[in-house]
Amino acid sequence: MPAPEVVRAIVAAALAEDRALEDVTTLATVDANLRGTARFLAKQDGVLAGMGVALETFRQIDSSIALATLVQEGEAFPRGTVLAEVSGPVRAILQGERVALNFLQRLSATATLTRAFVAAIAGTRAVILDTRKTTPGLRDLEKYAVRCGGGTNHRRDLAVMAMIKDNHREALAREGRSLADGVATIRKRTAGIPVEVEIDSLDQLDAALAADPEWILLDNMATADMAEAVRRTGGRAKLEASGGVNLDTVRAIAGTGVDAISVGALTHSARALDISLDLEF
Amino acid sequence: MPAPEVVRAIVAAALAEDRALEDVTTLATVDANLRGTARFLAKQDGVLAGMGVALETFRQIDSSIALATLVQEGEAFPRGTVLAEVSGPVRAILQGERVALNFLQRLSATATLTRAFVAAIAGTRAVILDTRKTTPGLRDLEKYAVRCGGGTNHRRDLAVMAMIKDNHREALAREGRSLADGVATIRKRTAGIPVEVEIDSLDQLDAALAADPEWILLDNMATADMAEAVRRTGGRAKLEASGGVNLDTVRAIAGTGVDAISVGALTHSARALDISLDLEF
Amino acid sequence: MPAPEVVRAIVAAALAEDRALEDVTTLATVDANLRGTARFLAKQDGVLAGMGVALETFRQIDSSIALATLVQEGEAFPRGTVLAEVSGPVRAILQGERVALNFLQRLSATATLTRAFVAAIAGTRAVILDTRKTTPGLRDLEKYAVRCGGGTNHRRDLAVMAMIKDNHREALAREGRSLADGVATIRKRTAGIPVEVEIDSLDQLDAALAADPEWILLDNMATADMAEAVRRTGGRAKLEASGGVNLDTVRAIAGTGVDAISVGALTHSARALDISLDLEF
Amino acid sequence: MPAPEVVRAIVAAALAEDRALEDVTTLATVDANLRGTARFLAKQDGVLAGMGVALETFRQIDSSIALATLVQEGEAFPRGTVLAEVSGPVRAILQGERVALNFLQRLSATATLTRAFVAAIAGTRAVILDTRKTTPGLRDLEKYAVRCGGGTNHRRDLAVMAMIKDNHREALAREGRSLADGVATIRKRTAGIPVEVEIDSLDQLDAALAADPEWILLDNMATADMAEAVRRTGGRAKLEASGGVNLDTVRAIAGTGVDAISVGALTHSARALDISLDLEF
Amino acid sequence: MPAPEVVRAIVAAALAEDRALEDVTTLATVDANLRGTARFLAKQDGVLAGMGVALETFRQIDSSIALATLVQEGEAFPRGTVLAEVSGPVRAILQGERVALNFLQRLSATATLTRAFVAAIAGTRAVILDTRKTTPGLRDLEKYAVRCGGGTNHRRDLAVMAMIKDNHREALAREGRSLADGVATIRKRTAGIPVEVEIDSLDQLDAALAADPEWILLDNMATADMAEAVRRTGGRAKLEASGGVNLDTVRAIAGTGVDAISVGALTHSARALDISLDLEF
Amino acid sequence: MPAPEVVRAIVAAALAEDRALEDVTTLATVDANLRGTARFLAKQDGVLAGMGVALETFRQIDSSIALATLVQEGEAFPRGTVLAEVSGPVRAILQGERVALNFLQRLSATATLTRAFVAAIAGTRAVILDTRKTTPGLRDLEKYAVRCGGGTNHRRDLAVMAMIKDNHREALAREGRSLADGVATIRKRTAGIPVEVEIDSLDQLDAALAADPEWILLDNMATADMAEAVRRTGGRAKLEASGGVNLDTVRAIAGTGVDAISVGALTHSARALDISLDLEF
Repeated sequence: MPAPEVVRAIVAAALAEDRALEDVTTLATVDANLRGTARFLAKQDGVLAGMGVALETFRQIDSSIALATLVQEGEAFPRGTVLAEVSGPVRAILQGERVALNFLQRLSATATLTRAFVAAIAGTRAVILDTRKTTPGLRDLEKYAVRCGGGTNHRRDLAVMAMIKDNHREALAREGRSLADGVATIRKRTAGIPVEVEIDSLDQLDAALAADPEWILLDNMATADMAEAVRRTGGRAKLEASGGVNLDTVRAIAGTGVDAISVGALTHSARALDISLDLEF
Repeated sequence: MPAPEVVRAIVAAALAEDRALEDVTTLATVDANLRGTARFLAKQDGVLAGMGVALETFRQIDSSIALATLVQEGEAFPRGTVLAEVSGPVRAILQGERVALNFLQRLSATATLTRAFVAAIAGTRAVILDTRKTTPGLRDLEKYAVRCGGGTNHRRDLAVMAMIKDNHREALAREGRSLADGVATIRKRTAGIPVEVEIDSLDQLDAALAADPEWILLDNMATADMAEAVRRTGGRAKLEASGGVNLDTVRAIAGTGVDAISVGALTHSARALDISLDLEF
Repeated sequence: MPAPEVVRAIVAAALAEDRALEDVTTLATVDANLRGTARFLAKQDGVLAGMGVALETFRQIDSSIALATLVQEGEAFPRGTVLAEVSGPVRAILQGERVALNFLQRLSATATLTRAFVAAIAGTRAVILDTRKTTPGLRDLEKYAVRCGGGTNHRRDLAVMAMIKDNHREALAREGRSLADGVATIRKRTAGIPVEVEIDSLDQLDAALAADPEWILLDNMATADMAEAVRRTGGRAKLEASGGVNLDTVRAIAGTGVDAISVGALTHSARALDISLDLEF
Repeated sequence: MPAPEVVRAIVAAALAEDRALEDVTTLATVDANLRGTARFLAKQDGVLAGMGVALETFRQIDSSIALATLVQEGEAFPRGTVLAEVSGPVRAILQGERVALNFLQRLSATATLTRAFVAAIAGTRAVILDTRKTTPGLRDLEKYAVRCGGGTNHRRDLAVMAMIKDNHREALAREGRSLADGVATIRKRTAGIPVEVEIDSLDQLDAALAADPEWILLDNMATADMAEAVRRTGGRAKLEASGGVNLDTVRAIAGTGVDAISVGALTHSARALDISLDLEF
Repeated sequence: MPAPEVVRAIVAAALAEDRALEDVTTLATVDANLRGTARFLAKQDGVLAGMGVALETFRQIDSSIALATLVQEGEAFPRGTVLAEVSGPVRAILQGERVALNFLQRLSATATLTRAFVAAIAGTRAVILDTRKTTPGLRDLEKYAVRCGGGTNHRRDLAVMAMIKDNHREALAREGRSLADGVATIRKRTAGIPVEVEIDSLDQLDAALAADPEWILLDNMATADMAEAVRRTGGRAKLEASGGVNLDTVRAIAGTGVDAISVGALTHSARALDISLDLEF
Repeated sequence: MPAPEVVRAIVAAALAEDRALEDVTTLATVDANLRGTARFLAKQDGVLAGMGVALETFRQIDSSIALATLVQEGEAFPRGTVLAEVSGPVRAILQGERVALNFLQRLSATATLTRAFVAAIAGTRAVILDTRKTTPGLRDLEKYAVRCGGGTNHRRDLAVMAMIKDNHREALAREGRSLADGVATIRKRTAGIPVEVEIDSLDQLDAALAADPEWILLDNMATADMAEAVRRTGGRAKLEASGGVNLDTVRAIAGTGVDAISVGALTHSARALDISLDLEF
């Protein structure tokens, strides 16, 4: 999970957004002393991610709530599984229910979709990467969910790793600077920073290799071309494939021998996983 | 759109999350004086929502950027439409691109899906409502996108409107309190607050009506029962339908005569709309 | 009380404002190990509100402080009553004293004044409402104090309920729009939001009723006119009276049969209640 | 006025508290292009304080608003005076009206009450001081209002000046430390910090003087005793009177020759000054 | 130490700056259950300041960490001394190590340098003062370190004490105002505020004394002139010496009889004290 | 420079810390309309860093201030050089002076010291690196100052790059895991993250190389051993030297052929550069 203070801040903001502690209905209808137990129930098969965030939600409302997780983060579960139990004041459970589910359903959706991609390429040498196409404000949580699904994180943000795309290359050319010069400028500023160069056709490969980046991104290239790029590169850089990746195409792409395949849909288009919270008191 | 200061804060947080101003690649490869123009291009049919947020993104990076919107918020557009243009320093455009698209693709997805539901019930008396199943941190923006799609907003949070669900009803019963007593307690605390009572079968309707709420929620009821509920209620309360709503079923539900139909998927399961930003310089 | 996190934040800000933890006098003159007990003593009759806020003040300074409340929130007390006891390090008690009293004296003043208005109309059907004429930054606390005094809260802010006043009506007229059109626009945007229409003479009543609002505000009208408005309205909307309300006039106003009477003075002109904190060690 | 960034933050918080930018009524009934002019009208005699805060309120909502102040801060005005004019979008004026008045009515009330005390002691050598009995969150603004009324500020907080009260004296005694030792400890930590010693009878005066403080506070002492204290002190320390001060007693207290008289009521019990905002468009 | 909440906030910001909780190395190589003990070891002679801040660092990472301080704040220690011990999860110790040392080495450096100045003037009547030449963001901590070294704090900021320098004097002259008028204006606004007047030659002394300030600053004056200033002042104001102060000159300056000597180098030029953290597990 | 919003926040905090806008002296003695010009004057030779931060300080106080920089960031200057000019209200100049100098003197000190190290190894292949031994809260500014001095930044924080030190190695060994396993675990979590392994003797080199890190840190090794490490490594990893680096030893270390030399003193022990601000009006 992201650092505790990050989780705490996101959860606190979500509870404030929902004005959970001012829940007029619950305060007017439920006695402060009434206690109960609620179970998170999976209504679809899935992979768990975010239960810690969901539980933090209840903890922030009432620190006396007892929590028991029955499935581990990153574990697959069939429909019908009880994922966790929450016991304590009914008021607190009802006040936090929606926010807890909003986190849990989204993050588990990402973990579940990631797991499907990871399974689809089992046995190949490639890993599944996420992208920066994340929900504003939830990047660290979503990247965590990708790891729960067995994926590997690509760069977190624009500062930790360089990626020279077509626009950057064109800007360099305008100034009469080479790709290698761009790479050197980046490294002069920050020792050890990894650099990736994006190409979209085989005839850009040699120039990219000449600039000596750690990674080369093969964007929207035919699988035959990717395979040829793998052969020509010969390990001098790691290769990432992106574009047109879905569950039908991903295995063929992995079969080209690339090191990694990035999938934007993991974080921008996963449908909420159906999980409910059933309360008894 | 939500209040400007809300938008500003969310955009600022998203830019910080992406460390957009520390974009090592762009700073090392693009001259500070290079200027260009970028066009937001629709690669799918859709309904626009969030261009103001996208443009705020660039404005925060460089206040000298010029912006021209070519499609209005809430307007439908076919694939291939240029939605807006952004002109200014290439650095700023590249630094903000991903964050701007992350907002725009999500919000337009919600507006587009909402429009589909609204169109499906055209000619009936019902409106399409959203829910509190929103992305943590983005509720106000997502509810705005629902309005762009022609939907109507349900309660924003737990404090502005009461909704008495089964658990609240059961808690009242435990204490020997009636539903009407629950409603009165809510109104004693806050004059004018609207109250909704959830029921899941027709035999709960009379008790619900007796409590005199502004709204009654018919949860997961058969359409025949909904129609009967409409008849029996006779305008004494407004009726909302929820559960099992999708584009195939929504028209039949609207046909029962309910006042509103709420759809969680508008905000929890819309797939990102494909929009790109094409830069020329 | 308002949500705990709201109280915590307001108290923390107040302690920072007073630089309570940097109290140069106490740090230089009182030994860190000296312990004592302080009693909140009422020096006037009153109604209690805000003791929880006062105690939170001490808790934030030193979490080991023991607290005992002797009078409940909303309870009336005669002069001379000990309201609560605080035991613990003398340093912490002295550092928090002023801030704790600043909250307690103001909030109890509002509760006490509210109780006087509530008592004045006992036996009528009306409730006493507060207004938005609250101290900037303390609205939630002051509205809580009104409830402690037996009052009912009017709308919390400009977003949770609509109130169409003369300026809004005139703006609608300018655009050739009817009052009913204004109400419909509000409801189209947000389902279930309550709407109030302000009128200042009987001849505006029919138009107001035609727009079908939940509430009508009778502003500064003669009691005879209010009584006539009650008769004509016949329960089709709730009626609120405002303007010229004081302890001498309020009962006559309530006698007209209005549902509610709003009083700005509850929050803008209550004089601090005289309560002291007496320390022994 | 307090530092601009302090004012900006307080105003921003107040507008957020009132959700001014989400004013559902105004957004639904007033056209965005409608412009008008509003006048702040005094409905009581008073002294102005806080117009800058009121105007900042409108500026934050719409930076295009034009403002003209017709009365200066600290200036006295008769009932019926137009204090300032605000011109611009009607929406912005209506959205900010309540918050602007909430500040202006409170701060002008404090200035007006301060001026009454100052006038009551005109010709004596004493100044009128405020206390730390301010509204939590508004101390800097209220102390500014006191200055507008012609008063002088006492210590802002617990860190900038030491005040040794009875409890501190007793704590020193417990440890076998003298008052002079307490004063020395304070000065050893921070060079130049002013120290005040509180006494409540004449027989404590010599010990207080022996500790050589900058100020001595005469708490709740008879005027004859105060006069005697003035005589005995002979200028070796400044003398402040407090307790039982009101408009009837203050002149007699000033007549004793004390240097300053502190009045808690300036900030804890001023009644809101009646000022309205009249809009024309 | 500064107020706990100030320390907590500074430490939290420093841990966030170092992204301590996301330490990729430690999370990947150290088992979560591994426990160990680390010792702070002095590799130079020094005076301790800031161990509480260092320990707060570990506490924020893992509240289960046990801490034992072996040397008190403000105590001198020889090279080779173990200053404190920290026991608990190895992960937490490694994650906090750098931040803890960054605080401890800097603050102890200031305390050590202050002690040297204090020792150099032992037996004179002067105290060593710090200045406002502190590290932005760390002023309260650095002033605390000065106290640990036996120094006395000068004014904390521009608001708590007035200091009239040459530019202020010149500005007064431009307006035809006297120094005494400037002093009176300051005191009219805030009762009890201490005032200091800076002079740089003996011929300004009489005018300074005539304005009756609490302090006079002798800036960059020859020791003979300082001694003469002491004589002429005769206790009517306290005298502070500044400029050209170093360990070679400070004793002669103290010998002139001034009350205080201020030294900017205490906070702007102390070299980090060499302290290491040695871990065993 | 760091991102503008980072600089803005640090400057705002520093001004608040100094309560610059509440400067009692300046407000009481300098007319609001008095204007002047101030010059930053170097009183030592140095390299400029941080003038942008200094100027931001004045801009935040008064946006009408005009600024002219006469020396560029990173440029060397002799004693006596005028570095920049600031023109505008004298009040604003005096209020910001100390904060501006506090930044400028520290950052230029770091740039100046860095330049000395860079000059000392001119002609070798090595670069000078900073460390994480920075002032809490100022890391981004200090790393910027290092770049102004011609240095290269090492890892910014614990999350962007892995460094396996002796404690991490020992923890791996405890669990029966190899160094290579540690490296793989890091890379599995985050694709592309650079990894460095620390060794302190030649006999650890082969194991380090076998783990295939991007960098190897030679800690406190003899120059002969460093040279041997360079030879044996043969370009398979980059080599960084640390420990015992000063201006006397750095050239010999660079002569061993290492790629980089890290120097903690750049940020933890630079003495403030003497720069004054001379005002005329």
